[in-house]
Amino acid sequence: MSLTISIDAMGGDFGPSVTVPAALACLKENSALALILVGDEAVLEPLLVQAFPVYGNRLQIQHASQQVDMDEPPSKALKNKKDSSMRVAINLVHQGRADACVSAGNTGALMATARFVLKMLNGIDRPAIISTLPSVYGHTHMMDLGANVDCTAEHLFQFAVMGNELVKAIDNIDSPRIGLLNIGEEAMKGNEQVKTAAKLLENSSLNYIGYVEGNSINAGNTQVDLIVCDGFVGNVSLKSIEGAAKMIGTTLKQAFSKNWLTKLAAVVAYPVLKSFKQRIDPRLYNGASFLGLRGLVIKSHGGADVLAFKTAIKLAEVEVQHNVIQKITQQVEASLAQRTLL
Amino acid sequence: MSLTISIDAMGGDFGPSVTVPAALACLKENSALALILVGDEAVLEPLLVQAFPVYGNRLQIQHASQQVDMDEPPSKALKNKKDSSMRVAINLVHQGRADACVSAGNTGALMATARFVLKMLNGIDRPAIISTLPSVYGHTHMMDLGANVDCTAEHLFQFAVMGNELVKAIDNIDSPRIGLLNIGEEAMKGNEQVKTAAKLLENSSLNYIGYVEGNSINAGNTQVDLIVCDGFVGNVSLKSIEGAAKMIGTTLKQAFSKNWLTKLAAVVAYPVLKSFKQRIDPRLYNGASFLGLRGLVIKSHGGADVLAFKTAIKLAEVEVQHNVIQKITQQVEASLAQRTLL
Repeated sequence: MSLTISIDAMGGDFGPSVTVPAALACLKENSALALILVGDEAVLEPLLVQAFPVYGNRLQIQHASQQVDMDEPPSKALKNKKDSSMRVAINLVHQGRADACVSAGNTGALMATARFVLKMLNGIDRPAIISTLPSVYGHTHMMDLGANVDCTAEHLFQFAVMGNELVKAIDNIDSPRIGLLNIGEEAMKGNEQVKTAAKLLENSSLNYIGYVEGNSINAGNTQVDLIVCDGFVGNVSLKSIEGAAKMIGTTLKQAFSKNWLTKLAAVVAYPVLKSFKQRIDPRLYNGASFLGLRGLVIKSHGGADVLAFKTAIKLAEVEVQHNVIQKITQQVEASLAQRTLL
Repeated sequence: MSLTISIDAMGGDFGPSVTVPAALACLKENSALALILVGDEAVLEPLLVQAFPVYGNRLQIQHASQQVDMDEPPSKALKNKKDSSMRVAINLVHQGRADACVSAGNTGALMATARFVLKMLNGIDRPAIISTLPSVYGHTHMMDLGANVDCTAEHLFQFAVMGNELVKAIDNIDSPRIGLLNIGEEAMKGNEQVKTAAKLLENSSLNYIGYVEGNSINAGNTQVDLIVCDGFVGNVSLKSIEGAAKMIGTTLKQAFSKNWLTKLAAVVAYPVLKSFKQRIDPRLYNGASFLGLRGLVIKSHGGADVLAFKTAIKLAEVEVQHNVIQKITQQVEASLAQRTLL
């Protein structure tokens, strides 16, 4: 089975200084993997010269003369950057030369380009972003995380259909528990979109468990595998969690660096604090998948370091190996056919 | 100056076992404070018999024969519970016998009853819920936290006008920095309500600093005093933060209780962990104010313990002492008059 991933090697806050070492580490760990690094040949070639003999045709460069800036408006990137590392990396997926693409570049430009090049699946109105977050029960998948500011009930339902296939495939569970994010668990709560989406989900074959609240993402009483919400709420919620984790981390660090006594305690507690940090390390959850497109695109956090970018590449590997896009495509076509019959 | 607060003594998950000790502790700490505990006399009297001689007329019971259940629909509570501890406590504010009311009861019923009894301020369409959250810079105020699932730009603007007065008064700052919660800091981002609200705020005399993202609540790069959002987003965000904090706390505890070595480290680190916990203890941030009404109502978390409920009473004391409701009323009337002139 082919497992070739194209990497936007110039994307992200740190470009090749992060993408190249992460790519090489992934090649080392998975001998079935082939990578195409897309970007300025003059920059990439010297960084890879020692790796070529090691990995042979599993490691290739695809030249691209431009790159998309992190703050460039998506429409401008789409119009003026037809030879950007981002665009060329996505083209490789479209051409069937790569099974997935990973980029740490500008989210808006990546989404717009992916949508333009790969096109939407029939039956899906909007692409959506899904990612995994740690929870006390293991982890939770959540979508949409920011692709769509306003969503109808139908959009939320489509997200659930797509997310369900992804979670089934990569978590290897038969019937993921799906919750709708709301401000209370009672039926009367929520806005009209959410209430109508609840009805669509109740009448579907999905394992819909009802409304869940914000705390269910990381540590609620309700165990849920997939949380569905609109992109505005999802993005604010995700970033609120990031901010809370950062504040708690900072406060913990400050408490341990107050005076020599607390510093001594830090030395004793170091192995524990290290194992604690590893369990909730956001770098180990890096990588969001764009669903609804005719091809797989994974977005890495722009500020990703080598470990985080590696995680995003590994997510692409897992999704390719589990045929996530094929499964979503089949299901969307089946559900759509089923629904038009009603 | 009078400082009399009515307490819904029967409200919350724990009722008088929490509200009574918290009330007595507040009376002990502030000799200017008077409290009226509202609830079943037969239950409250025995609990207060020893305190009456100590606090004299600073401590009173107001009998109420009913209580609102935690999961009772607001409309039912409004119709059938006219002699509930919650309703009578709010009546006392309406009658001018109390300057504020504190309840840990059912949020929906409390809001509906407060709105029915106290009425809205002229110029305000919707009441909103504001609370304080810890941040690396100190703290941030945020509203609406769940009273309104759908908000227009005008509603968001009204929230900002009210919140601004509250923050000025209780934080003693001249010109609070106000941010609109959005999914990016660029002008093009966001939904229509948020974009239009941004224009209203830019054209106002408020110190509007622009869009802020979810991480700005606790630990963003942008320092902000007041974050404005609709109640759906605000509630999800608040609960997401609660969930993240709970997960991190649980993970930290697990890491320290793994084996005898980590338990030994916990003993050494105990004073540090304790001081860390105190700095972000959610009980010290308990209490949300309902703004937009002709009277002050503070909502405590339903699951509040004595320390948390004390915090909510103290918040009421501070807001009464700073004439928050009077200041908001004046400002709303002034802004409204100014705006109709445009």
